[in-house]
Amino acid sequence: MKKSLLVLALASSFAMADEGMWMPQQLPDIAKELKAAGLALNPADLTKLTEFPAAAIVSLGGCSASFVSPNGLVATNHHCVYGSIAHNSTPENDLLANGFLAKTLSDEVAAAPGSRIFVTKAVDNVSDKVIDASTAKLSGKKRIDAIEANQKAIVAECEKDEGHRCTVAAYYGSLEFYLIKQLEIKDVRLVHAPAEGVGKFGGDTDNWMWPRHTGDYSFYRAYVSPEGKSADFSLDNVPYKPDYHLTLAKDGVKAGDFVMALGYPGRTNRHRLPSEVSDTFEWAYPNTVAQFKNTLDIIGRETANDKDAELKYASRVAGLNNYMKNRQGMLDSFADSDFLARKTAEHAELTKWVNSSRDNKKAYADDLKTIEKLLKQRQDKDHKDYLLDNAKPRLLTVAGALYRLAEESTKPDTERKAGFQSRDLPRYKAFVAGMERNFAVSVEKALDLYNLGRYAAQPKKLRDSDFDKVMGIKDGMTEQQLKTLIDSWYANTTLTALDKRNALLEMTPAQIAQSDDAFVKAAVALHKWNLKQEAAEEELAGKIQQAYASYMRAKIAFMQSKGQAVYPDANSTLRITYGNVTGRGHGNEDGNAWAPFTTLRGITAKATGEGEFNAPQSQLDAIKAKQYGPYKVDSLNSVPVNFLATLDITGGNSGSAVLNSNAELVGLAFDGTLDSIISDWDYNPDNTRSIQVDHRFMLWQMQLDGAENLLKEMGVK
Amino acid sequence: MKKSLLVLALASSFAMADEGMWMPQQLPDIAKELKAAGLALNPADLTKLTEFPAAAIVSLGGCSASFVSPNGLVATNHHCVYGSIAHNSTPENDLLANGFLAKTLSDEVAAAPGSRIFVTKAVDNVSDKVIDASTAKLSGKKRIDAIEANQKAIVAECEKDEGHRCTVAAYYGSLEFYLIKQLEIKDVRLVHAPAEGVGKFGGDTDNWMWPRHTGDYSFYRAYVSPEGKSADFSLDNVPYKPDYHLTLAKDGVKAGDFVMALGYPGRTNRHRLPSEVSDTFEWAYPNTVAQFKNTLDIIGRETANDKDAELKYASRVAGLNNYMKNRQGMLDSFADSDFLARKTAEHAELTKWVNSSRDNKKAYADDLKTIEKLLKQRQDKDHKDYLLDNAKPRLLTVAGALYRLAEESTKPDTERKAGFQSRDLPRYKAFVAGMERNFAVSVEKALDLYNLGRYAAQPKKLRDSDFDKVMGIKDGMTEQQLKTLIDSWYANTTLTALDKRNALLEMTPAQIAQSDDAFVKAAVALHKWNLKQEAAEEELAGKIQQAYASYMRAKIAFMQSKGQAVYPDANSTLRITYGNVTGRGHGNEDGNAWAPFTTLRGITAKATGEGEFNAPQSQLDAIKAKQYGPYKVDSLNSVPVNFLATLDITGGNSGSAVLNSNAELVGLAFDGTLDSIISDWDYNPDNTRSIQVDHRFMLWQMQLDGAENLLKEMGVK
Repeated sequence: MKKSLLVLALASSFAMADEGMWMPQQLPDIAKELKAAGLALNPADLTKLTEFPAAAIVSLGGCSASFVSPNGLVATNHHCVYGSIAHNSTPENDLLANGFLAKTLSDEVAAAPGSRIFVTKAVDNVSDKVIDASTAKLSGKKRIDAIEANQKAIVAECEKDEGHRCTVAAYYGSLEFYLIKQLEIKDVRLVHAPAEGVGKFGGDTDNWMWPRHTGDYSFYRAYVSPEGKSADFSLDNVPYKPDYHLTLAKDGVKAGDFVMALGYPGRTNRHRLPSEVSDTFEWAYPNTVAQFKNTLDIIGRETANDKDAELKYASRVAGLNNYMKNRQGMLDSFADSDFLARKTAEHAELTKWVNSSRDNKKAYADDLKTIEKLLKQRQDKDHKDYLLDNAKPRLLTVAGALYRLAEESTKPDTERKAGFQSRDLPRYKAFVAGMERNFAVSVEKALDLYNLGRYAAQPKKLRDSDFDKVMGIKDGMTEQQLKTLIDSWYANTTLTALDKRNALLEMTPAQIAQSDDAFVKAAVALHKWNLKQEAAEEELAGKIQQAYASYMRAKIAFMQSKGQAVYPDANSTLRITYGNVTGRGHGNEDGNAWAPFTTLRGITAKATGEGEFNAPQSQLDAIKAKQYGPYKVDSLNSVPVNFLATLDITGGNSGSAVLNSNAELVGLAFDGTLDSIISDWDYNPDNTRSIQVDHRFMLWQMQLDGAENLLKEMGVK
Repeated sequence: MKKSLLVLALASSFAMADEGMWMPQQLPDIAKELKAAGLALNPADLTKLTEFPAAAIVSLGGCSASFVSPNGLVATNHHCVYGSIAHNSTPENDLLANGFLAKTLSDEVAAAPGSRIFVTKAVDNVSDKVIDASTAKLSGKKRIDAIEANQKAIVAECEKDEGHRCTVAAYYGSLEFYLIKQLEIKDVRLVHAPAEGVGKFGGDTDNWMWPRHTGDYSFYRAYVSPEGKSADFSLDNVPYKPDYHLTLAKDGVKAGDFVMALGYPGRTNRHRLPSEVSDTFEWAYPNTVAQFKNTLDIIGRETANDKDAELKYASRVAGLNNYMKNRQGMLDSFADSDFLARKTAEHAELTKWVNSSRDNKKAYADDLKTIEKLLKQRQDKDHKDYLLDNAKPRLLTVAGALYRLAEESTKPDTERKAGFQSRDLPRYKAFVAGMERNFAVSVEKALDLYNLGRYAAQPKKLRDSDFDKVMGIKDGMTEQQLKTLIDSWYANTTLTALDKRNALLEMTPAQIAQSDDAFVKAAVALHKWNLKQEAAEEELAGKIQQAYASYMRAKIAFMQSKGQAVYPDANSTLRITYGNVTGRGHGNEDGNAWAPFTTLRGITAKATGEGEFNAPQSQLDAIKAKQYGPYKVDSLNSVPVNFLATLDITGGNSGSAVLNSNAELVGLAFDGTLDSIISDWDYNPDNTRSIQVDHRFMLWQMQLDGAENLLKEMGVK
């Protein structure tokens, strides 16, 4: 028995990966952990962003992907190319439903407009340039302005190399900054996508869920000019020849195996302070969930007998539900955890360390106090403004944005506020046009009545007198009085008409200021009030940046004093996370657990022949006939479909290449499980699991779909 | 990675127990395996049936149980004492619903009539007496008769010691016989049972299922005369002082721990020949399932608009469904397995071994061929008689049994056929009376029409001419003709009336023979035909016994030549099975697995406040308040309720004490999981799991229910 205990203890330490989304150059700092987890290669060989394997990893902007052939073939998730499949679909040729396969280069079709493949070419630490000597002396809004100006200058210099996109990314709460230079491939073509019944099998029902059976893979190809430069779509273009590409593993993974994912995770909040955690989980998220729930109730009620309005709000309803599921998932996890207590204890430990030596104290103690004070200030403001922010009618916000756009447009483009530059104009046009299909007066009135009602019910001293004056909010208004007020706005607006909204896009500020439209008048009247608010926010943001960077510096120094490396929070830059293939001791219900793999059997069990579980008949037939080919795993008595691993991923990692201990492709990450969502804040090794499509399933399904040309190109057969 | 592979391999070998329901005296033969699995005690110390721990294990006749105090307190399953709880329940004092707790000895109530506790006092090998020199020379029916006569004589001699029940049990397919002498405790009292919402939580829905949350425990107490002898219920009786009793483990088990179960498993078929396996799984069970399904359909149709008939057949419907679930479970497991191929290969190996030496060949070769031939003979007969056996109307069977009873009653009691002796009379009376509540002419007619229709549709040469003649079955009968025939029987019978059935119980054979009741007349006419069939069956059974014993002797010799011990199939005698606490890599659906423990959380999740999931409010409140007491397991963050283990159990093991490596009580076995049912034939270590109620849950719930007196008596507090 002693022996078996020892065995179990060892097994569990092997199965539990360290958390962390590491910058590739940090890997030597965690070499011991990587070796222990099973990495066969030397971590020092994985650090170069312009060499294998990092150089084979690309960003699609919001998704991750990787080169899998010397001819620019790119593997990513089905859901990452979904827009491109939809873009090429017609009622007669429904590529979403049927899938798409280009058998030759000339069959490949242009991806959706705006599709990009970003290939990282250089990464440089520019911290000293972003916060140079003079910026370091500034505080408040001036500091924010200087940082933004410095970043703009660095980016402009870098982008002189045509065909590249440059970004200055902030790390460790704006303590460090890196310039990332990427080749921007604009001619992106769709090569292959399985049928939706494979690539999106399970749909929203299975989203964030395990067991999972989604064949979430698809292929793009990168094209460049014959000279190898970034170029817009042209038939003269040729496949891009990447410096490096991934090869597919001959054998798949099994339970316990080392895996690593390389991709571009979006945002995490692992280094937040305890007060930020408590404000988020005890105030912000619960309020958001409640607010969304009320919004959904109102939309449901108002569209109950109005099919047109129901369709108009269908997308918003889906979005609100999705967001609620996410936030509620985090709240449930938070309620079950000791996260805040742990965070508080960790911060107390840091504070103790800071106060334990004269040097540390001098370097960090003041800032540690300052950051708490500043965060409290911002939270107080947020709480105070919460009902006000929710109370602004949608048409007021639209009018305000269009007036601001007109105001900014009077300046030279480079001096305009971000978000109001020339390149943003198409977005405004699309937005204004889109309202035709997502706006109904009846619904908006009902939402205004609810939200304004909650705001107006507050005592006068909690309300904003400027807003009240402009909008006509008075003390002690009855619901009927509010309703009459709201009705009067809608009776006196033409913003509900597309041509009137379009007209605003063409007007000067002075022309807009003469409008007698109720919402436009109010927006113009509130313009300066808005700018004042913005300036106050930026003043506070500047102070916070300064103190926050100092807090992060203290934290890094503290961790280093304990011999621990610190990874920066995710910021959409390339990261490596490692872990092991493993199920979980607790599953969806008490007494159940999660197996590490799903198999083809589960597809058959879930298939209904329609909707989200519409597995293709050819696939079901092949499963029934046990046509497993070389992809059968004996211990599973089937072909693996998806697998779980302890990889530390988040949004943006979708499509990330998952590699084995020899850096060979074994799968694509595409999701996490519901109680892993809180890992954006708190990585819990007991709960957190990433979900991957197994490359054996991908190859099995591709063979079934007749994609021999691609299998051959990837060197599989 | 190599390291982690090694670790996984070791862990899995520890988790997999050897199959086997071992006779305690066999434990030294498997000492190495027991040590490897984690047994801390010396196996040689567990072999004595009249010492600890075996002497603490008792049989309730169909269930297992154990002494858990020096004062005769007996722990077993709730479902094993269910009848006794029901017996003591009234509408005003519903013990089933509310549970029962005797706070003092005088509060304890008599168990249901017929309740027994059997305490084993001696076990002796009587093989040479059962098959003595003269019997060994006999064959066929004569051999069967002689064996029965020898057994009766041994039992009669043993039962001269008043208050004891003696049994001659056959082992290894009647190769060996043991005389088991048990003290028969007749004064059994109900001490404690939790509410049905605890003890039967989950009901039929959760039966054979995991995850499971059933508090399947209850307590009896054994009473004897002041002189310590077996005695009928009397207020003068005193608690029985067992020689040994179990003590409760201070700590519960955890995943991987050694456990063993001691109890009285009913029947298994592990040593069957390949032809028996194929006949059972490819002919008998599929036919049974189909026949039951048709029967259920007919009952359903005929009772659809007849509430009274529906109620009359409710119990039979439940029974048929339960049996179908069991058999279908086995068939599903069989379809997924290579059982028959393995069995065939094993038998081929045995045959090869037999033919590999002159001595073996001489000893076994003929019998190995003979047994195959005899079994084929019996199977052919069963197949041939299948439709005929199903075609017999229920009232014909009733009439036949009552006539046989009258015939046998003309002989001295000891010479009557088993099943027709004086002690069987109460059973016949209850059966005849019970028909008032489980018999409806409309339903029986419909069943007769279906079953006789299938029989009559056969060509004449496949039918039985005697049966046809008596019943009036003719070649090429239409459904309408059959219906008319059946109607005529029911028009000419009075067996549907209780007083007429009762009257038959009092008549002589001659009186019965004069009846003009359609079914009675037919039964009398078929009596000799029946006896002839029976004699033919016994003739074959005698031959089979002889050859089968020889086959088993060969198998044991073969296994011993490979250094392997052979346990006999279960036969309701005391056995020990060992294994480990462990979940399972595959669960109820693809991608899920089974955790080894369920917890209180699952009770809350399943509780509906009614029906099968009617958890008591006091329990739910305690769970909500996290009142775990000393029974909380940190890694589960709750109190464990049930746990899985690789114990090799079957029906009859219900209530078996499950002990840890120091032979302390850690739980009570109460069920297996659905795909373990086939383990009665084929023990599959990947699938087979026993389900135990964790003793920590039992103690937690008992504390909640105020059973401090019992906790104290068991030495818990």
